[in-house]
Formats: sequence, structure tokens, C-alpha cells
Amino acid sequence: MLKGIAASAGVSVAKVYKLETPNVVIEKKQGDAEAEIKKFDEALEKTKKDIEGVKERAAKRLSEEELAVFDAHLMMAGDPELASQIKNMIQSESVNAEYATDVVATQMVEMFESMDNEYFKERAADVKDVTFRLKCNLLGLLIPDLTSIDEDSIIVAHDLTPSDTAQLNEYVKGFATEIGGKTSHSAIMANSLEIPAVVGCPGVMDAVKTGDVLALDALDGVVEVNPDEATIQAYQEKAKAYAKEKEELKVLVSEKSVTKDGHEVELAGNIGGFKDVEGVLKNGGEGVGLFRTEFLYMNSDHFPTEDEQFEAYKQVLEGMQGKRVVVRTLDIGGDKHLSYYEFPNEMNPFLGYRAIRLCLKEQDIFRTQLRALCRASVYGRLCIMFPMIATVKEFCDAKAIFEDVKKELISEGVQVADNIEVGMMVEIPAAAVLADQFAKYADFFSIGTNDLIQYSMAADRMSEHVSYLYQPYNPSVLRLIANTIKGAHSQGKWAGMCGAMAGEPNAVPILLGLGLDEFSMSATQILKARKVVKSLSYEEMKDLAQECLNKQTAEEVLEYVQSKVEQ
Amino acid sequence: MLKGIAASAGVSVAKVYKLETPNVVIEKKQGDAEAEIKKFDEALEKTKKDIEGVKERAAKRLSEEELAVFDAHLMMAGDPELASQIKNMIQSESVNAEYATDVVATQMVEMFESMDNEYFKERAADVKDVTFRLKCNLLGLLIPDLTSIDEDSIIVAHDLTPSDTAQLNEYVKGFATEIGGKTSHSAIMANSLEIPAVVGCPGVMDAVKTGDVLALDALDGVVEVNPDEATIQAYQEKAKAYAKEKEELKVLVSEKSVTKDGHEVELAGNIGGFKDVEGVLKNGGEGVGLFRTEFLYMNSDHFPTEDEQFEAYKQVLEGMQGKRVVVRTLDIGGDKHLSYYEFPNEMNPFLGYRAIRLCLKEQDIFRTQLRALCRASVYGRLCIMFPMIATVKEFCDAKAIFEDVKKELISEGVQVADNIEVGMMVEIPAAAVLADQFAKYADFFSIGTNDLIQYSMAADRMSEHVSYLYQPYNPSVLRLIANTIKGAHSQGKWAGMCGAMAGEPNAVPILLGLGLDEFSMSATQILKARKVVKSLSYEEMKDLAQECLNKQTAEEVLEYVQSKVEQ
Repeated sequence: MLKGIAASAGVSVAKVYKLETPNVVIEKKQGDAEAEIKKFDEALEKTKKDIEGVKERAAKRLSEEELAVFDAHLMMAGDPELASQIKNMIQSESVNAEYATDVVATQMVEMFESMDNEYFKERAADVKDVTFRLKCNLLGLLIPDLTSIDEDSIIVAHDLTPSDTAQLNEYVKGFATEIGGKTSHSAIMANSLEIPAVVGCPGVMDAVKTGDVLALDALDGVVEVNPDEATIQAYQEKAKAYAKEKEELKVLVSEKSVTKDGHEVELAGNIGGFKDVEGVLKNGGEGVGLFRTEFLYMNSDHFPTEDEQFEAYKQVLEGMQGKRVVVRTLDIGGDKHLSYYEFPNEMNPFLGYRAIRLCLKEQDIFRTQLRALCRASVYGRLCIMFPMIATVKEFCDAKAIFEDVKKELISEGVQVADNIEVGMMVEIPAAAVLADQFAKYADFFSIGTNDLIQYSMAADRMSEHVSYLYQPYNPSVLRLIANTIKGAHSQGKWAGMCGAMAGEPNAVPILLGLGLDEFSMSATQILKARKVVKSLSYEEMKDLAQECLNKQTAEEVLEYVQSKVEQ
Repeated sequence: MLKGIAASAGVSVAKVYKLETPNVVIEKKQGDAEAEIKKFDEALEKTKKDIEGVKERAAKRLSEEELAVFDAHLMMAGDPELASQIKNMIQSESVNAEYATDVVATQMVEMFESMDNEYFKERAADVKDVTFRLKCNLLGLLIPDLTSIDEDSIIVAHDLTPSDTAQLNEYVKGFATEIGGKTSHSAIMANSLEIPAVVGCPGVMDAVKTGDVLALDALDGVVEVNPDEATIQAYQEKAKAYAKEKEELKVLVSEKSVTKDGHEVELAGNIGGFKDVEGVLKNGGEGVGLFRTEFLYMNSDHFPTEDEQFEAYKQVLEGMQGKRVVVRTLDIGGDKHLSYYEFPNEMNPFLGYRAIRLCLKEQDIFRTQLRALCRASVYGRLCIMFPMIATVKEFCDAKAIFEDVKKELISEGVQVADNIEVGMMVEIPAAAVLADQFAKYADFFSIGTNDLIQYSMAADRMSEHVSYLYQPYNPSVLRLIANTIKGAHSQGKWAGMCGAMAGEPNAVPILLGLGLDEFSMSATQILKARKVVKSLSYEEMKDLAQECLNKQTAEEVLEYVQSKVEQ
């Protein structure tokens, strides 16, 4: 029996598929530059095709957001800088292609890893993933094809890369890995695919061989190899009980989200594109609280045209069948870039030129998106939301452009819905503090907790040195949320939340008590949140929330909520 | 008559000293590498000596803070990377030293300038300044010695570098430059030296020759060359009137800072070290509201020892003669680095590992500073202030270390004052929002507006793309300030401000009305601020401040204040 981190809930018993990646050994050889460059070009082409293939197969099960990693890989494989560095080395040192690839890759990985923050670490992982594939292709080594798994299996691996997890099919009943944590890529994917996963489980590779039976308990973070019959049965019962609980949640799919004492709220889903609509509906989402349109831009090699965008928005609005869809206008910059647009090189990009700041300057980009949205508005119930609003003037400027675009379309004879709501993200402290004034102009607020917390605490959660300051339950954060909701209500407007916090079982009681009207989260969190809402009394949660606002630390708030609310 | 930007108030009439910098022409020649390297080493040595000489002369008139630029220059001149790049080029291409210097310098300047933000632009200016000196030394060209000016003069130049302004002596009655703006280095120095300056005045170099008479009107931003007698007389009268106004301010040096209706506040000065104490006292400062101790660390090649720090703190406390001195503990990181300590490479250093975050991890550094402060505490009235506090836990942790250090010293038989106040900067939105809770533990607050505004608006003011969002008068910022003061008073504590805003004539009425107890600013702003305070009614300002909190934009606030308060 081995201990690890329970990263995605569930219990499975199945045969082991031990993922052994090829052992890549690189030797330095003298080579004919021309021949080696030809070999390299062919391997690079094959690598690109491989990634495209993986992406295509993955598209069947993954959301737009999750697919974005393959675009990052394709971009890296297509990066002329990478190819030219390797070719230069082949040429100038007359070495073999795999050696040059290895040297250049190692340098790039070291450079990114030395940057010492999450964003660049992800880039380092991308380089590793792509160049590993490239080296295997150069050496004629086969990368195991996980899509070939055709009987119920639990994968055991040192780690699962994005390419690996993307290939998991319905026969994969879970996985256990030696490294990783609750927020590592593989954990996130397991949650999204709803398969049990235990990560950070050292020694698991040595403990198993393909064909062993494995009991994977991702409720308690335990793995057992070749357990006896009685033990297997115990795990199977645990699995059944868990499945039953999940079934019970499914009953809530078509129920309203209403407290014991009759206070109703809306539980909605976050999406990255049309592919995610089905998941929201299947999980009982009452709307889309956040449609992140940046994926339309990031998964493209040009600014998407008005017609391309129109089709994307129309699809989602129709798919949601008249339920409310909140579309966030382009939120790019910070750590999100486009291959076809040059961002300024800023010292603190999170405090820089991004989102609405960019859209108000680059009005052509903004107007194209607003035209597409207005045209799509007749196919459903559209809300438009501006990101990163800091001042009343910015909101009014952005809204004026919307009004102008709408007028322009109507004068062209195009039909535009007359019930479009125009609101804003509240993710900058200044907006939360001045919410009562913003509410005079905005039709609604949606609180973006990720950024709001980062700015309120002046701490980049991607920097490991200060990530301890990313505290959703800090009373100061709760006060800003409370002030935002109060501000909205003072003008008869509604307030939602589309940050990660909205779906956390410990946060729901507080947010409910503060009067939050709409909670938007990952589709898979909705039913659990509904169960929580239905178990609570609104009047009691009002008192609970007020108590939380007067605590001193995040720990005190969490302890208090856990002592008051049974879960 | 030429128009420019009035960058430092005042009026002068005097003879022109036209600053003509040597015309450096670089020719590429083949050279004997060894001889060229020797020539380079000698020129580099002379350059370092020159900078040290300039720093020494400048030290007579400039504050610690203003002198820091020369440490940056010395560090650059001593940078082994710069020297080795140049020497490598001399060696590998057998070129002359001045050509190699020019090429390497140009590359470095381009690199820094391409970074497109203020911090790196300053580094580019440093490289230019140092390598210009280096090239002149290589070519045997003399850089004009401004310290040689020995009759009343107005300097006319294309631009003044930090090295130039540092050399201005008492005969310099003002300057006019072709380029620059209100916040450019030369403008800041002119203000600090209290000499009139008109900057951004194109064509002024062509319009004058050394010996011309110049009327410099830095109240209206006008320059007149060789005016007639009547005009000269008019300017001289204007100068007299302005001097009279300044004299009137001097009367206020020993007066209290009290409103018409008897409400008293404290006007204090910000300092970077002992050198600045005299300026604070001369300008009627009632205390030091911010002693930035980072200069002790930045102007050193090692972490200053306990004894070195003790001496520095003791000097300042004694110098302030029992008046309150608020010492901020080490605030390093962000854009402030040390040559002898390696900071992590973060994507958003302003949201990263800095100030108290570093001190709580590197407790040896912190304890050394606290020991030195405790030991010095008996020489005056000491307040210790922690920077970048985000959570109550951080403050309590930092204070616990202070208590422990104090106990340790007492057990060693060292005397420690028993009236040391321990407070915190309020510069992170979370702290401003939760001020009532912090006030249970902190003896006082000092609001740091520069950072508070940056984080509240999520905008780095050093990025030109978003610097328009740096809005001290935004009602959301004013609300955070109001909440901080209210929080302090709710626990019977005092609240000060040590950001640039505290000395702005338009801000003083609002801050006064919000109940701010202490205003700490540049020494030269104190008397003007006192005049403003004395002209106002506290009761009226309370109403004015409340009105400001309910405005929607920074523009509305400013208009309102200007309509209500005559200045």
C-alpha cells in the first residue's frame, strides 16, 4: 500500500497499464550537415503532425480551454527560432540532428526554469514535451500510444504530460503518478475527465508491472497493488458508495438552486467555447456565467473575423437555449499572448496593458468583437461583460462604443436584440471599492476572484515566494466582495462571481449570505454546489457572512465556516 | 522669447553658460589588442575616479536619495560584464578601444530602451552617461566642469544628465534645456535644489551663446534672450515678488500646523539618511514621517552590519532632537535591488518577493536591523514601521520578532527605549480595507500612496501604456484612505501618509478633512503645505472630503476641490 495525494475524487480497481516512455540516449556524432538538416526537417514535420493528431483525438473529450495546450505545442514546434537554432548548430558544428536538438532544448528548458515562476515553468514543460517527441522521431523510437488501450486499466506513470492526458479514453479508469500535486496539470485534467487520480505517489512505478491489479483510492489518496479478494471487494463497495453519491447529485440536475428558506440563486458554468456547452447543461447549469472569448483569439493565427466570431457566439447562444450567457470581451495580455500581435515588454505585465485597456486603444479589434456579439444577440439571451475595468470612465467609454456599434448595425438593417445587458468584471480593487458608483452604469457585475485576490493582496499567485498570500478567505477579500454585491443591489442590479471561489463548498455559504445572485463555476462543480445551497438557510448564512467580515485572518474565517456548516 | 515647460518654480536673470558637450566622433581603426586593452583599462579607471569625484562634490548639496544615481553609475562602470564584452571585441576583432566601447554601449542602450518601461529607460540613461564619459576619456576629450562656474549664470543645454545636475553650485541661478518634462530627472533635481528651470524648450541652444543675458521665467515657462532694460526690470520684479512669497513661507518655519478653527496636524519630512535631516528642520518639519532605510543597503557592497546601522539610526534620532522619527524597515525588491543579494526572477516583481515578505523569510537580515534600531532608540523618539503588510498575521509575526529582539537586548544588558511605537505602511489594498482589525495590533499607520494607488488600480505607473490609471484623486483611492484613517481612529491610533500625495496642495484639504493626523513629504514641500493647512477650516474640509468620497471620477474630485478651495 502506497500513500499519495488524492487529486481527483473516486475509487477504481483495474489492471495496471504501466507507462514506460522510451529511453532516449543521445550520442554526439559528426554528421553531414545537409543530410542531418533534411532528417531534422522531416522529424519536425512528423512531430507537428503527431501533435495535430493528438489534438484531434483529444478534441473528442476535452474542452476548448484544455485543448489550448496543444496550440502552445504547435506554436513551439513551428517556432522558426527553435528550428533555426538547431539547424545553425548542425551546420556550424557538423553534428547530428538529435544531438543539436538535445543541446538547444536543454538550454531553452534551463532558461525557462531559471525564470522561477509558474508561467515560464509551463513554457519549460512545453519545450520538453515537444522536443522529447522530436528526439524520439529523430531516433525512430515509438512513443506509447495511450489511445490503443482497449480494456479497463489504471495508468501508472512517473508523470503524465498534457499530451498523455489528452489521449486518455473511456477505458482508463484512473491513474497514479510519482510526481505532481493538487494543482498540477494532470490533476486538473483528471478532474475534468472525472476519473480518479492519485498523484505525488513516490515509488509507485517500481511497485507495479503491467497486468498487476491495482486498487486506486482517490478519496483517501491510497494505492494498493495486487490486493486480496476481500480487499478488492471493500474497494469496490467504496467505489459503489461514491458512485451512488454522484448519482444522487444527478437528481439535482433539473432542480432549482434554492435554500431551505426559499432564497433562489443561479448556478452557472464557465466555458471556453461551444464544446463546453453540453457539459454545462448536462450538469444542470442554469446559464453561462463566463464565456472566455480569448480562446477564439488564442486558437487562431489571425484576429478572428467578425463572421468567425459571429458563428462562435451564435452557436453558444443557441446551444444554451435561451438561458443567460455572459460573454467576456477579449481579455488578453498579462500572461496570455497572441502569436500575431506584439505586446509591449512591461516589467509587471499583470499591472499592465491588457484586456479593456488594450481594447479601448485598439478600437478596431474591439468593434469587430462587439459587432459579432450584437449580430449574434438575437439567437439567445446575451450579456456582454468588460474585463479589467478600473475606472467609471473606462466603463462608460467601453459602453459608448457598444452603443455606437449597435446603432451602426441597426442603420445597416441588421437585427440586434434589445435586451442585451452590459456589465463588467469586478476584479480590480478600485472597482470593488467604488461599486455603488459603477452600478449606476453597469447592468451587472461579475466578481473575478483570481485577479481581485492577487491585486488586493499585491501578490502574484504564480510566484511561489508569495503564493501563500493568495487567500480567498481573507476578510479583506470578503469585504470587497460584500461591497461589490451591496453596490449592485443599491442600484437594483445583480452581482455574480466567475472566479474559482464561486464553486468552493466552503465559500458558497459565505457568498450566499452576502447576497450573491449568480455563481459561475466549472461544470463539474455545479451539482455539488446546488446540494450545498439546498442544505442551507439564507437567513442563517446572512449572519454567518457578517461574522466572517469581522474576522482577522483567512484561517479564522475557514474555521468558523467549517464549525457552523456541516458538509 | 521661447516657450517651454516650467519645471521648477522661480524667476532669474543672469548671463548664459552654454553647456556644449564634446563632439565625440568614433572611427573604426585596427589596433594592437594588448595596447588597446591597456588604454581601455586606464580610461575605465579614470572614469570610475571621475564619477567618484562628481559624487563627492555632489554630496555637499544633494540628499542620500539623489546621490543614489552615482552608485548606479559606479556599479555600471565596475560591471565585469561591460568590461569583458568590450575587451572581447577588441581582442577578437583587433579594433580600437573607443570603437568597441561605442558598439557595445549602443547595443546595451538599444536593449534597455527596447524594454519599453521607465525602469529600463533609466538603466539606458545610466549606460549612456557612463560610456560617454568613458569615450571622452579614451579620446582625451574634456567634459565641461560645471563646478568651475564662478559667476551668476543660467545654464543652457540640450539636456542635463544626473552627473551634470549633481555639479551645479550656488552660482547657478537656473537652467533651460531643449528636452525633458516635469518628471524628468533634471526637473526633479531643480526642485530639490530650489533653482528655477524651464525644460522641453526646443531651439534654446541655437538661440543663445555663452555671455548672452537670459531672463528665465520658470513660473510661466518662458525664456527671453538679451531682453531690453525695461523687460529685465520687469522680470527682476517678478523674481522679487516670488522671493517675497518664499520669504513669507519661511516665517512659518517655527509655527504650528493648525487650521483656522484650531485643528492641529503634524507636517513631517521624508528622508533617505542623516544628510537629509538638516533640510527637514530648516523647512520646519515637525518630525520624520519616513526614513527610507533601503539606501543604507543600496549604497553598500554588503549587508550593513548592526553597528553600521546603529550609527546611522542614532545620528538621525539625535539630529531630530526628540522629534518623532518613523523608520521603515528594509523595503527592497520590486524595482530596488542589491548587488550582493540574489532576488528570484519573477514575472511581476511588484507583486512579488519584497519588503516584509523577504524580511520574514530572511530573519537574520531583519533581526540585525531591529537590533540596531532598538539600540538606537534611546537617542530620540523612535517609531518602527513595516512595509508591504498584507495580512494581520504578517504584522503580528513581524512584531513578535521585534519583541523577541528587544527582550534579547535587554537580557544582554543593553538599554532599549520603552516608548518605541511599532506600526505599518498601508500600501496594499487588503490592509486599507481591513484597517480596523490591523489597528488592534499596530500603534500607527502610514499610508504609502504610490503603491496603494498602483495596486488599487492594478496599474504599474512605470508602464507608459497604463500610467493614466495612476490616479491619486480617484474616489476609490480616497475611500481606501478614508477607511484606513477611520480604522486607526477606531482603536485610538494615529494615521499618517508618506506618499507623494501628502504634500500636494490639492490633496491636503481632502486629507485634512478625512482626519489624517500626520503628513510626511519632501522637505521643500512642508512650508507650502503649512500655509495651506493654516488657510483652511477643519469643519469645512470634513464636508468637502465626504463630498469627494461620493464622486465618480478623479477629474470630478479635482474640479470640486479647486472650486471650493482657493490657493
